[in-house]
Amino acid sequence: MRIIDLRSDTITHPTPEMRDAMFRAEVGDDVFSEDPTVNRLEAMAAEMTGKEAAVFTPSGTMSNLIAVMSHTRHGDEIILGEKSHIFLNEAGGAAALGGVSLRTLPNNPDGTIDIDRIEGAVRGKNLHWPPSRLLCLENTHNFCGGAVLDVEYTTEAAEAARRHNLFVHLDGARLFNAAVALGVPASDLCQPVDSVCFCLSKGLSAPVGSVLCGSGEFIARTRKLRKMVGGGMRQAGVIAAAGIVCLETCVERLADDHRNAKALAEGLRQIPGLEVEKPQTNIVMIGTGEIPAADFVNKAGEAGVKMISVGTNRVRAVTHRMVTAEDIDEAVRRLKKAMAV
Amino acid sequence: MRIIDLRSDTITHPTPEMRDAMFRAEVGDDVFSEDPTVNRLEAMAAEMTGKEAAVFTPSGTMSNLIAVMSHTRHGDEIILGEKSHIFLNEAGGAAALGGVSLRTLPNNPDGTIDIDRIEGAVRGKNLHWPPSRLLCLENTHNFCGGAVLDVEYTTEAAEAARRHNLFVHLDGARLFNAAVALGVPASDLCQPVDSVCFCLSKGLSAPVGSVLCGSGEFIARTRKLRKMVGGGMRQAGVIAAAGIVCLETCVERLADDHRNAKALAEGLRQIPGLEVEKPQTNIVMIGTGEIPAADFVNKAGEAGVKMISVGTNRVRAVTHRMVTAEDIDEAVRRLKKAMAV
Amino acid sequence: MRIIDLRSDTITHPTPEMRDAMFRAEVGDDVFSEDPTVNRLEAMAAEMTGKEAAVFTPSGTMSNLIAVMSHTRHGDEIILGEKSHIFLNEAGGAAALGGVSLRTLPNNPDGTIDIDRIEGAVRGKNLHWPPSRLLCLENTHNFCGGAVLDVEYTTEAAEAARRHNLFVHLDGARLFNAAVALGVPASDLCQPVDSVCFCLSKGLSAPVGSVLCGSGEFIARTRKLRKMVGGGMRQAGVIAAAGIVCLETCVERLADDHRNAKALAEGLRQIPGLEVEKPQTNIVMIGTGEIPAADFVNKAGEAGVKMISVGTNRVRAVTHRMVTAEDIDEAVRRLKKAMAV
Amino acid sequence: MRIIDLRSDTITHPTPEMRDAMFRAEVGDDVFSEDPTVNRLEAMAAEMTGKEAAVFTPSGTMSNLIAVMSHTRHGDEIILGEKSHIFLNEAGGAAALGGVSLRTLPNNPDGTIDIDRIEGAVRGKNLHWPPSRLLCLENTHNFCGGAVLDVEYTTEAAEAARRHNLFVHLDGARLFNAAVALGVPASDLCQPVDSVCFCLSKGLSAPVGSVLCGSGEFIARTRKLRKMVGGGMRQAGVIAAAGIVCLETCVERLADDHRNAKALAEGLRQIPGLEVEKPQTNIVMIGTGEIPAADFVNKAGEAGVKMISVGTNRVRAVTHRMVTAEDIDEAVRRLKKAMAV
Repeated sequence: MRIIDLRSDTITHPTPEMRDAMFRAEVGDDVFSEDPTVNRLEAMAAEMTGKEAAVFTPSGTMSNLIAVMSHTRHGDEIILGEKSHIFLNEAGGAAALGGVSLRTLPNNPDGTIDIDRIEGAVRGKNLHWPPSRLLCLENTHNFCGGAVLDVEYTTEAAEAARRHNLFVHLDGARLFNAAVALGVPASDLCQPVDSVCFCLSKGLSAPVGSVLCGSGEFIARTRKLRKMVGGGMRQAGVIAAAGIVCLETCVERLADDHRNAKALAEGLRQIPGLEVEKPQTNIVMIGTGEIPAADFVNKAGEAGVKMISVGTNRVRAVTHRMVTAEDIDEAVRRLKKAMAV
Repeated sequence: MRIIDLRSDTITHPTPEMRDAMFRAEVGDDVFSEDPTVNRLEAMAAEMTGKEAAVFTPSGTMSNLIAVMSHTRHGDEIILGEKSHIFLNEAGGAAALGGVSLRTLPNNPDGTIDIDRIEGAVRGKNLHWPPSRLLCLENTHNFCGGAVLDVEYTTEAAEAARRHNLFVHLDGARLFNAAVALGVPASDLCQPVDSVCFCLSKGLSAPVGSVLCGSGEFIARTRKLRKMVGGGMRQAGVIAAAGIVCLETCVERLADDHRNAKALAEGLRQIPGLEVEKPQTNIVMIGTGEIPAADFVNKAGEAGVKMISVGTNRVRAVTHRMVTAEDIDEAVRRLKKAMAV
Repeated sequence: MRIIDLRSDTITHPTPEMRDAMFRAEVGDDVFSEDPTVNRLEAMAAEMTGKEAAVFTPSGTMSNLIAVMSHTRHGDEIILGEKSHIFLNEAGGAAALGGVSLRTLPNNPDGTIDIDRIEGAVRGKNLHWPPSRLLCLENTHNFCGGAVLDVEYTTEAAEAARRHNLFVHLDGARLFNAAVALGVPASDLCQPVDSVCFCLSKGLSAPVGSVLCGSGEFIARTRKLRKMVGGGMRQAGVIAAAGIVCLETCVERLADDHRNAKALAEGLRQIPGLEVEKPQTNIVMIGTGEIPAADFVNKAGEAGVKMISVGTNRVRAVTHRMVTAEDIDEAVRRLKKAMAV
Repeated sequence: MRIIDLRSDTITHPTPEMRDAMFRAEVGDDVFSEDPTVNRLEAMAAEMTGKEAAVFTPSGTMSNLIAVMSHTRHGDEIILGEKSHIFLNEAGGAAALGGVSLRTLPNNPDGTIDIDRIEGAVRGKNLHWPPSRLLCLENTHNFCGGAVLDVEYTTEAAEAARRHNLFVHLDGARLFNAAVALGVPASDLCQPVDSVCFCLSKGLSAPVGSVLCGSGEFIARTRKLRKMVGGGMRQAGVIAAAGIVCLETCVERLADDHRNAKALAEGLRQIPGLEVEKPQTNIVMIGTGEIPAADFVNKAGEAGVKMISVGTNRVRAVTHRMVTAEDIDEAVRRLKKAMAV
């Protein structure tokens, strides 16, 4: 039985074009800034996000970490959603390594944080209070089921932050899913923010890497922080080459993943007892009702469909390049059968 | 016009008995553990909280900080109320110095955190997650208007925490207000928790100091942390002497402050437009309705009654040893007059 | 047998005048900056060191810690002597809490660090290197036997630091011992540096406290850091009052301690096997030769003379207000007898 | 003119075999521990170093950082050479992120630290002192000119550390250079230590990566730390594949680099005014005497020979796979000519 793996779009393997590009990649020592392929990827990323400069890192977690550290200093406070990846899934690094307090605010189901909550959370000047310094947004929003923040909301939130002298960082791990879903250039979604990072290794299918973009001065600071946390790599061009290919060839096709996600949601909605949210991008959130999420995941796994639980009765399925429309149909068939028992 | 200062019970001056005790205090070098008066205060505090050992510190903030650091290590997560003093008013030290992530949960108006929320917030083992290590409670609860956690709730919360291998720290800055309000020994409120600190310099009227209590091993670790943050003092017996007096003479009289707070609340409730919560201890929370809190505080100040705003339309008044029942009547009279304008 | 305690000048008890001042001290809540006695002490300290502003702290360790943190940020490097108190005896707080790397350089026996070593240790700009930010000096130099840095050296070292854009902090725990030994105003020793702290609780005999002095902006930042580490105290005037008295009455008398130290050194030099350095201030360093330091300390202790070992064959004796010239004679007599066995 | 680049062995490009292996690499999501190629590399590395387990990281800096963090906690002290790479060239991360104090001891020219100095630097238990927790050695020793620590010294140093309950970490960035130079298996050099890391991207020519090895429990802890600092990569098999090839094909050939280094040293020694140390491995340290290092490097660069200055009159040249014996002869010719001017 062929396994249909919907756990995450991070599992995507590099395409043959990427492997070929890696094979041929012109390289140099990136710690000396001499890797032409890394330099090219960084320039592309800066252009696509509309920022002055960019830095290549081994992971989205590192991009977010050094972005937070570059915008703040120990003792500052950052404002972010209580369902944000930075808060929930990055091993506490912002506090442990960056020394910042996390002011978590409720995320609406659409991934937004109410503007008035943001403004209400900003601290004034007082000896007892950590200074508020940074607002972090996330687009698309992973734990809000791939929800998309549109240009208008992003602008409004960033303006609110600026009124209080906060910087704004966008965790755009799946930025291009948002751009494709909205039909706007990624740079429109980045224009309102000070810094943005996106992952090459999720839906875009590159094997490794993330790019962090912002002003020239900001990126210069992050290069030192990247070195400090151990993210300086040598002939990183071999992996950057795959990143370039993914930006050239895998962005538009994210629309397929979004279509497949919709089809999956519709199929699953026919299974009694499940509550399936309508996906905006490539993430399908499934309420398993009275069935514990762990049981649902197990049964699905036995039927050759892999998903992960993200709560006691909440399961996440993610579509990606290695899952076809036919796979989705087959997955729905298998799950209907498995749940009928 | 005599000023009636209701900003905080921290403003209380030492009593003549305290000054006398300071004058006569037998002292030694406490960094060598040779200050007999400090040793006596620590023994008293340990006994009153029912713990093995205690350490004297210059402030409640330091007690909380070294308690958190002693229970955790960098990269851990602590669970606490979103209105807790540790989160709101200790300058972000837990994250900045202790490297812990703060998982803030809603505080109910009575200062409690729902037990199921506590259990729901505990993280399992996963590379992506900071380990949950500590639950912090606060009693009485400052920003919940001096609300009292009773023995039953404290026990229940601590048991929930233990089921998940969390330690429990109680920020008992106003622990004795809670004990007096409930009519139970302080040790009953401390029995369920691993560590507790209380302030000598709030309602108890000592000029300086806090005591942190816990197991012998825990306190031994905090002594090193106290040294590291700069809390090791030399002939600290001079201030510990006042602390001993306050424990001997100022605990029972907290009931007066509670009575005065009730009288104040009743008086203020007669002023149209104000919403005044019924105080459980010595803190009165005043909703100023359509009047901005800052304006209310200003008008009150002009009338010789000092309070502080704790929100855009929320004001806090605190009763204490330096405010008599007559002062309260006078304060109400002045405020009625000031607000009538 | 009366114990003659030469372990440290930190053991000095407050004088009757200090106790009286504490008894009478006018106080307020220093967290609201309303303690007139603290304000007065801070103004005195600023004036005596020739700085714009000052902040009162519970210990020299805290003063040094918040000075380092205020001058630097996490990831910076500070340059200091390998025998400095900050490096050796402050529980690693600069790195643990301030996140700075310590570049330790050899201290000459006179407490200085060679100027060319300082300049040679400054790092340039390079991704791989922590930025050099601060030079720390110590005067008098504790583990160099109370050695005095004169105005000329201090100026020269500070100028070298400035040429490389470093700040300069002076750990002047025993600053007034240096000033008295040199016969210059303390402010002359502080003029070349950006910040300086001195202890009230060592030779000056106050029970508790230290004062950190510097520019207005610098001190404003340290107030927040002091709050964060838990050094904000309430009616701290009770201890500041003793500090004022010690500055008024105990500075000039440090000359007695210096005379006593010289007498002690001369007396001990007559004991065969000991190598006793000529003290510059109130610290006598005793090389115990073939006798292990621990044995020497034990024997001396049995003879009623307390000292501490500061190395495998190195013992420190410190003179102070509670040891008279007669005590010194008696101590020498006892030690001669004890060592004769 | 063909450039002969002797700046570092980090500049080596991947071999065709490596590129081919990257092209064909079987991959999975390493964050789910499902990348078979990464797993294979880690198993190989563990075996070659004789340790239970291993973890793949993007850089030697990250391996050292998470090793230090895994062995220690904030507030501990580590003992290491004052010329060690961890101290000099890793951006202060150990202090900034790990919160450890660095006790730097003199490195002998052969890269060793005197055993009695190590033992003398260990701190006892005292409230004032950071606990000594870890000894770091470096083999080969970069800034000691590629000096080799032999098995005997490593054993002796590790035993000394163990007597004081210290852990021992070996920064083996160029471990295989040491093993080849000594003619012993790498595991013999690792047996005495608790953890060791080596780089794939220096002399071994892989494009990216380092491996950290130690006990199973230790490595499990480092996986969490690796995630926290952002070193968790997805289909890291593409780069691990190159790492496997380099371990299979590039270890023995390090002997060529060592021969070339010797030839280079001999050639350069003929240039008047230079003092050239006899290289033990692939690093040649050149004393430039009266010529400033920067000038020497410039002149050499104009002659098509790249090197880097590592001091005011000290230059480093490193041999590696992309420099042949003929290149070395040519480099000597060019430098003789350039310096004759």
